[in-house]
Amino acid sequence: MTKAYLLDGKAIAEETLGRVARETAALRARGVTPGLATVLVGEDPASQSYVASKGKAARACGFHSVQHTLPTTTDELDLLALVESLNADPTIHGILVQLPLPKTMNAARVLELIDPRKDVDGFHPVNVGLLSVGEMDRAIVPCTPAGSMIMLDKACAALGRTLAGAEAVVIGRSNIVGKPMAQLLLQRHCTVTIAHSRTRDLAAVARRADVLVAAVGQPEMVRGDWVKPGAIVIDVGINRVAGEGLDASGKPKTRLVGDVAYAEAAEVAGAITPVPGGVGRMTVAMLMANTLEAARRAAPAGE
Amino acid sequence: MTKAYLLDGKAIAEETLGRVARETAALRARGVTPGLATVLVGEDPASQSYVASKGKAARACGFHSVQHTLPTTTDELDLLALVESLNADPTIHGILVQLPLPKTMNAARVLELIDPRKDVDGFHPVNVGLLSVGEMDRAIVPCTPAGSMIMLDKACAALGRTLAGAEAVVIGRSNIVGKPMAQLLLQRHCTVTIAHSRTRDLAAVARRADVLVAAVGQPEMVRGDWVKPGAIVIDVGINRVAGEGLDASGKPKTRLVGDVAYAEAAEVAGAITPVPGGVGRMTVAMLMANTLEAARRAAPAGE
Ligand SMILES: NC(=O)c1ccc[n+]([C@@H]2O[C@H](COP(=O)([O-])OP(=O)(O)OC[C@H]3O[C@@H](n4cnc5c(N)ncnc54)[C@H](OP(=O)(O)O)[C@@H]3O)[C@@H](O)[C@H]2O)c1
Ligand SMILES: NC(=O)c1ccc[n+]([C@@H]2O[C@H](COP(=O)([O-])OP(=O)(O)OC[C@H]3O[C@@H](n4cnc5c(N)ncnc54)[C@H](OP(=O)(O)O)[C@@H]3O)[C@@H](O)[C@H]2O)c1
Repeated sequence: MTKAYLLDGKAIAEETLGRVARETAALRARGVTPGLATVLVGEDPASQSYVASKGKAARACGFHSVQHTLPTTTDELDLLALVESLNADPTIHGILVQLPLPKTMNAARVLELIDPRKDVDGFHPVNVGLLSVGEMDRAIVPCTPAGSMIMLDKACAALGRTLAGAEAVVIGRSNIVGKPMAQLLLQRHCTVTIAHSRTRDLAAVARRADVLVAAVGQPEMVRGDWVKPGAIVIDVGINRVAGEGLDASGKPKTRLVGDVAYAEAAEVAGAITPVPGGVGRMTVAMLMANTLEAARRAAPAGE
Repeated sequence: MTKAYLLDGKAIAEETLGRVARETAALRARGVTPGLATVLVGEDPASQSYVASKGKAARACGFHSVQHTLPTTTDELDLLALVESLNADPTIHGILVQLPLPKTMNAARVLELIDPRKDVDGFHPVNVGLLSVGEMDRAIVPCTPAGSMIMLDKACAALGRTLAGAEAVVIGRSNIVGKPMAQLLLQRHCTVTIAHSRTRDLAAVARRADVLVAAVGQPEMVRGDWVKPGAIVIDVGINRVAGEGLDASGKPKTRLVGDVAYAEAAEVAGAITPVPGGVGRMTVAMLMANTLEAARRAAPAGE
């Protein structure tokens, strides 16, 4: 068995970002600059770093980028008012409210107030519905599944496969990854199975898959013998586990692993995404692609 | 092999309608009468008969029922204005625009104008999205899949089964049947496979199913040997095919069959819905259940 084709998330994300930057330049030449507003409530360090990296990517793409940072003590009504003002702001095409919000807030209410056309995370029920019914000219697709599809297309191109008619198995049924991933695979004419924690004999279900997507949050749960020989394996999981030894500051080292036991699976799969350096790299790139697309849709019809 | 348990759509629909009538009486005692408005554009005889049967069922349940009949030549703007007035009418809790609309009209635009809280067909993208994300306190579920779930629960009760962990296969991926059915089965913790016209070796996929739902529109496509012994088979298909001989007026007779070859499948299945007299009977009943629920949600809280 030859080793699997390695899907390089960094390279594919850079390619996507390059395309977004080029198309942004073309849109700006028509007088429209994509605008992304990020909203951060509180001081969670992880959230701060996510928001910073999104703002940085936006500027690198040539977007207008604004960041709103509010204290943890912010009144929910003030946050709602900010969302409404961003909805009304014609220079803003994408609104990203960084999750999690403080527990005192009703996150669903905040997210549902975002104009669906500016909901570049694709979490608004309207966008979920438009994706499900296949209105792709209007839907905004959640970033991680959208990025996974691009990697899948790269794998198909490399292996000379087509998705139509393939058996796809998605392990995980979350609203942000598993379910939209299943919808995208269905649109591409896969026979789609959605598995989850209540699935009986998950290994056997996984072994049916020509396309296996793991979005579980269980470190290295998918073993090599769960993978059908030649299958394309997309590992969405990002799990921090104990590493070996201590780091410079004397704390136990940690490392990132996916939901797939990479070394084993790579011996069997036809193509596979690593962790880190796989799907995770695509998420910010797709956020930029979504913002560009939202700006394009909002732009007056051009020549 | 014993014969399958027969799921009697007529009896289950009557039970549902009886429950709706009782609960409507209770709601009316609190001063709220569920109101259903049907809108028919044009003179298609099948549509006329559907709308009439919906109005009749609404009255039998104790609802306030109004029917708006507009000529085929109606301007789309007038239809949109009617929908808006029904949205604003506090005596109306359910709005049903009978499909198909005249080809000159943009059906999606009309349907999306319906207030999602009054969209008792459950086709509005907002309701599709709420179903997908599992916000069942706010979603309105399309009638045919909702009715299929009730029949499935009857089968489980009769056979002593549970849905959680069962392998469910839905053949068909339409927005009105296949996709919402898959969402409902997923919520009940089935491992769900969605199959369709591009599925390879459909018979083998079907044979995996503990719960097999056929929503295809292909007369008797699902054969007996596609059914896993003991499986619960829900046949959503309604197909008119040539019968034998001539009717009273001298025209060739026709008859209704499902997507499942009933006689064969009933020898193998654990439980099965017939056609006619199966799922088809549930659709109007669930429309009434949806209208009652919409009225309940709109009613002021408490007694
Ligand atoms: N940028 C990125 O690459 C990105 C973005 C988002 C998430 N992620 C990562 O992707 C993973 C999944 O994220 P998520 O947000 O979808 O997670 P989630 O909301 O926790 O959902 C996990 C899903 O996996 C299922 N599951 C859990 N344990 C299982 C088991 N032992 N066997 C089978 N199924 C099991 C759960 O089933 P039940 O529904 O039955 O509980 C659930 O549907 C995480 O590692 C996360 O860090 C990465
Ligand atoms: N009240 C009721 O009981 C009720 C309500 C609605 C519908 N129905 C009946 O249910 C059936 C389905 O209705 P629908 O509206 O969902 O139909 P539809 O929109 O025509 O969808 C049919 C689905 O079946 C798939 N399909 C067609 N031929 C197939 C084949 N040979 N093998 C595998 N899959 C195939 C199609 O696949 P592709 O997507 O790949 O084309 C499509 O997803 C019809 O008979 C209809 O009359 C009954």
